[in-house]
Amino acid sequence: MSQNLNCIIASTSTIHGSGYLAYLKPTLKAFFKERKTLVFIPFARPGGITHDAYTDKVREALGDLFDSIKGLHEFENQTQALKDADAIFTGGGNTFLLCKMLHDLKLMTPLADQIKSGTSYLGTSAGSNICGLNMQTTNDMPIVYPPSFETMGLLNFNINAHYLDPNPDSTHKGETRETRLKEFQAQNKTNVIGLREGSYILAKDGSLTLEGDLEARIFEHGKDAYELNSGIALDFL
Amino acid sequence: MSQNLNCIIASTSTIHGSGYLAYLKPTLKAFFKERKTLVFIPFARPGGITHDAYTDKVREALGDLFDSIKGLHEFENQTQALKDADAIFTGGGNTFLLCKMLHDLKLMTPLADQIKSGTSYLGTSAGSNICGLNMQTTNDMPIVYPPSFETMGLLNFNINAHYLDPNPDSTHKGETRETRLKEFQAQNKTNVIGLREGSYILAKDGSLTLEGDLEARIFEHGKDAYELNSGIALDFL
Repeated sequence: MSQNLNCIIASTSTIHGSGYLAYLKPTLKAFFKERKTLVFIPFARPGGITHDAYTDKVREALGDLFDSIKGLHEFENQTQALKDADAIFTGGGNTFLLCKMLHDLKLMTPLADQIKSGTSYLGTSAGSNICGLNMQTTNDMPIVYPPSFETMGLLNFNINAHYLDPNPDSTHKGETRETRLKEFQAQNKTNVIGLREGSYILAKDGSLTLEGDLEARIFEHGKDAYELNSGIALDFL
Repeated sequence: MSQNLNCIIASTSTIHGSGYLAYLKPTLKAFFKERKTLVFIPFARPGGITHDAYTDKVREALGDLFDSIKGLHEFENQTQALKDADAIFTGGGNTFLLCKMLHDLKLMTPLADQIKSGTSYLGTSAGSNICGLNMQTTNDMPIVYPPSFETMGLLNFNINAHYLDPNPDSTHKGETRETRLKEFQAQNKTNVIGLREGSYILAKDGSLTLEGDLEARIFEHGKDAYELNSGIALDFL
């Protein structure tokens, strides 16, 4: 990983029983301290919501932390907007849509470069998936065809957001998340971290740590999956 | 749809509490009557199983219905093998992998042509998804990058195999299946049938019907999703 990363890479924006970004709010208040402008990337469009409506939702949740929050779609020169931002947030939704938009607009590399240079970054769900090497461990439906599955590669491994343990009571024959990730690793040598809802990765001071109350499930290629405690450094992955 | 289709397009190979293809066996016995040779397409590789092992599993389940069952990977000239087969079965697994293999080997169109000309076809799960216009309503993880999401287009609509109703007790914040399909339809005008495990589509005598004990969930573009009873013709989709 780049030494200058300053990122919160979260499994989800929202946990059961609380509002949008509420569980992260105290963390974000400290993380974004002294950052005046936030650029929000709404391209993942959860549920088909418009870019404007999605940006308004973020203004409502984080408006008190910044002087200004603008959606990236509002700028004429979007590469420049990323350069000028004090902080960047990419929201969740559909990772295929997000990835296609960033590639089509030639923004994937400028976004990665900006974050590697130290701009504070928050990702949730799809916005976290794009921090890995590629989006091939998303849970999302391929509703559009991106020109490539490659993503920012801020991390040397992939994210599986909303990681879900098998339900022992289920009679459904669709694959479990663990089965899917093993299928991925039958085709790819990439390591994967399964981030449960409420977990996030903090990249700061040249190090990566697992944060939140929960353990994460680690899929190292060629090994059995195992649990990792919160607070542990992830630099080994 | 083509007037000559002779297909069983099933949500799943296996239902809870019974063996591989067991719930379909009586139906298949009648459907494949007088068909002597089966070519099995094992490319979807569930759980990363080998082509040989997957074909053996099919031989065990359906061996008594045919004089010969061979995996498509066993043939030198695979296009010719499809032409020569009395019947073709594409098994489930990962739809991205299946779709990539069929495109890479230039078999997607020959396979579709063969089925349109009347060769008996069984698809389960991924093998059913490829009967639709494209694979963009799969539930699978994008473990490989196919050169296209387009599939055989035997039907004028898409399949969502293993259709799953929302779990009212779930605290998980990942999208429900219905939410995902609505996101698909925010980007695409394609109709979709959500086939629950145990349901299948029978294409025969120029008509399509929903078969099995369960209702299916229909997603017509621009309409609210609704239930359709088994036994109903699907030609309107």
